[in-house]
Amino acid sequence: MPQGRGTRVPRPSRVPRMTTTATLWFEDVRPGETFHFGPYHVDRDELLAFNRRWDPLPIHLDDAAARARGLKGLSASGQYTLCIKQAMLNGAAWREAIIGALGFDELRFPHPVHPGDDIRLEIECLETRPSQSKPDRGIVKFHFRLYNQDEVLVLSYLDTVMFARRPG
Amino acid sequence: MPQGRGTRVPRPSRVPRMTTTATLWFEDVRPGETFHFGPYHVDRDELLAFNRRWDPLPIHLDDAAARARGLKGLSASGQYTLCIKQAMLNGAAWREAIIGALGFDELRFPHPVHPGDDIRLEIECLETRPSQSKPDRGIVKFHFRLYNQDEVLVLSYLDTVMFARRPG
Repeated sequence: MPQGRGTRVPRPSRVPRMTTTATLWFEDVRPGETFHFGPYHVDRDELLAFNRRWDPLPIHLDDAAARARGLKGLSASGQYTLCIKQAMLNGAAWREAIIGALGFDELRFPHPVHPGDDIRLEIECLETRPSQSKPDRGIVKFHFRLYNQDEVLVLSYLDTVMFARRPG
Repeated sequence: MPQGRGTRVPRPSRVPRMTTTATLWFEDVRPGETFHFGPYHVDRDELLAFNRRWDPLPIHLDDAAARARGLKGLSASGQYTLCIKQAMLNGAAWREAIIGALGFDELRFPHPVHPGDDIRLEIECLETRPSQSKPDRGIVKFHFRLYNQDEVLVLSYLDTVMFARRPG
């Protein structure tokens, strides 16, 4: 499971990716920037264990049951897809700055995730604004997109996060 | 972790809850009905293991780090909160009828989840409509709300799900 601290791609020029090593604070994340993470390989045993523990629907456990519902084979719980998205962020350069998740909007699962998939994550910063009430923080809105190895979109949503401002 | 198959509460009369034992299909889920699940007890060890595996931010692992960010103590990853929501649904009477998750809207985490919390789930059916293209299924929109033991809302969102219609 290769992970980076997140590579940032300035837009629209698409110059070569630069790996960021310093902590990014609220002030360092700018609208229009895109960060790339992953890929994350979906291991069949891990997926099955997760589905069994948290979301044991027949379509999440059994290939035949999934095919009977028009799927290619057993598929990930949406919760698993959200977890691997989160795991890919573990090394993100802004990790120290996160105060908390505020919410998700327009979250869609347009295509199922299956065992053997290699999932990559692309995050575009849409908007940043300082908190009105607390001077030590600000709010960042990202567009999260997950793609499989065939570049098929499997998850898309808007994620609003509370960031700490650079200390001092 | 007591779980039911979901108890349905007709509205607005609030007559005594009836436990449903037969499978509910698309046709059986009606706008205005509310279903209740849980409670789910948040075990500190389980929460820590989950956070460590999927979302090891300092605020998810360490009481002091969480307090430094204004939290009461270490708190659940949003992904954990979504997973316990899903686990509470395991016994839902419509479980056999689920074809897949379409998406979440207006998802908010208005209050953190902490070790020791007892979380309950309330699901209100807002809307149902048959699929335009596939006669064997229909779409159901629910409002999901999770509350802690103090009746504080910890998660709220709209969940759109593809249901199978009653076979035959």
